[in-house]
Amino acid sequence: MGERVGFIGLGIMGRPMARNLLAAGFPLTVHSRGAGPVDELVAEGATRGEDPAGVAASSDVVITMLPDTSDVEAVLLGPGGVLEGAQPGSIVIDMSSIDPAPTRAMHAALAARDVAMLDAPVSGGEKGAIDGALSIMVGGDEAVLARVRPILEALGTTIVHVGPSGSGQVCKACNQLVVAATIEAVAEALLLAERSGVDGARVREALLGGFAGSKILEVHGQRMLDDGFDPGFRIRLHRKDARIVEEAAAATRTPIPSFSIVAEQLQKAVDAGDGDRDHAALFAELVREARSAT
Amino acid sequence: MGERVGFIGLGIMGRPMARNLLAAGFPLTVHSRGAGPVDELVAEGATRGEDPAGVAASSDVVITMLPDTSDVEAVLLGPGGVLEGAQPGSIVIDMSSIDPAPTRAMHAALAARDVAMLDAPVSGGEKGAIDGALSIMVGGDEAVLARVRPILEALGTTIVHVGPSGSGQVCKACNQLVVAATIEAVAEALLLAERSGVDGARVREALLGGFAGSKILEVHGQRMLDDGFDPGFRIRLHRKDARIVEEAAAATRTPIPSFSIVAEQLQKAVDAGDGDRDHAALFAELVREARSAT
Repeated sequence: MGERVGFIGLGIMGRPMARNLLAAGFPLTVHSRGAGPVDELVAEGATRGEDPAGVAASSDVVITMLPDTSDVEAVLLGPGGVLEGAQPGSIVIDMSSIDPAPTRAMHAALAARDVAMLDAPVSGGEKGAIDGALSIMVGGDEAVLARVRPILEALGTTIVHVGPSGSGQVCKACNQLVVAATIEAVAEALLLAERSGVDGARVREALLGGFAGSKILEVHGQRMLDDGFDPGFRIRLHRKDARIVEEAAAATRTPIPSFSIVAEQLQKAVDAGDGDRDHAALFAELVREARSAT
Repeated sequence: MGERVGFIGLGIMGRPMARNLLAAGFPLTVHSRGAGPVDELVAEGATRGEDPAGVAASSDVVITMLPDTSDVEAVLLGPGGVLEGAQPGSIVIDMSSIDPAPTRAMHAALAARDVAMLDAPVSGGEKGAIDGALSIMVGGDEAVLARVRPILEALGTTIVHVGPSGSGQVCKACNQLVVAATIEAVAEALLLAERSGVDGARVREALLGGFAGSKILEVHGQRMLDDGFDPGFRIRLHRKDARIVEEAAAATRTPIPSFSIVAEQLQKAVDAGDGDRDHAALFAELVREARSAT
């Protein structure tokens, strides 16, 4: 348990994750764009890192939890970045949700300087982060995963090694594809019921036990019936993840005909001002379209 | 249990259903287009009905299990049809999967002659029919359902009253919408994984426990990984049901943007000769498209 851990990116997800590492007893150096979250973590026992290079210089394992691909590239490879400070034999775990292809490129750039990298995006949201109950999808070398497993176990309850570098991000993209497409399908079905004069609650109940049954029908279907769209997972974040899906599909020439439409629906919802509502509000987007059509 | 039951339509689903009614002790009169299935049921104890009117004349409750809307209209309202022979106070249960709007019209036409009607489409497939374990989604008057419940209990294990006439068919349409859209989403995700060099089995496993988890990911996802597309539920039947969804959506001006694409994929799969494979073969359709694009 002696590994010194660095944590870069103290946002909604990163903050509780860093806190769980402190609670698990890991010596922790933190850095983030905003001073507030850093001050908070320092008050709780972490050490301040002046920049990513500084964090790397005093850590055996550096975790990044950042909004987008370009952020991870800047923090790892940019001036004052992790690569400038990282010691040979150290490990970077990128837990952000970003593009698989640039992930593989960063993996290679770090490997050339004897720094290992895992991609380890998560699902489970803010609640999972707070509870240390995230699902973690890991791409990269299995021996590297074995070494950092005790660290990841402080953050999540399910840790799946998916495959080589980039596989964790591909898996996360698949997850976000299925989740958004299922939400859209449930929304279309419940709206069809409602507009046919049929009680959506009865339909949800009748469908739950059969082949139409899913976690989404259960949870997000209920949100649609309740008109309860507080996040949860924000539509604008799912729109960002949809872009990753689209880029991964384009890069591999994979047809995603139905998801392309779902991505458009996410974009329309953002454009309509629903970006900060839960992704179940894809239902509200359909309702708007139905109203403007009649 | 003294109700005399008529059964019209001894296809793949109707035959085992009629058999279960005989086994439950209901006096049964049967009719079907083909003589073979009628002979079979008569050998097992049923009475032959010369035409739908004849079946109705000797039954308190008439069940129809037919391929499409026009078949049900012909059998109920056409020459020699159920309405010609039905006694006032008798009940028609249409267990076919057909359009909600014509269902309501037939309900009204029968009601004018004091014949009640329930729409009671099922899910569970041939296996559910054989096992008497269908899920039955019922539209129509609740008191009528109460009277025929012992009959339906010989056919299914889950009997949900959804709402007034047509509601059962709306519910079935919602079911078929969600099932096909989820299959397509899982197919797109697993193909994206595969074409990204990632093991689809690991992705399925990683996704099953979270929000992407569904019965479809579990069952049909596995079929995709195994390339095992024996039906199951045939694509051409799902294409038929998709048309019902599209007509119900058009009639109620309900936007179904993602399902419209899924319906196209079903059609393409039928056009490619996959109509008699399981609907999980939407995956095979995507594979074809990926190949022809590269």
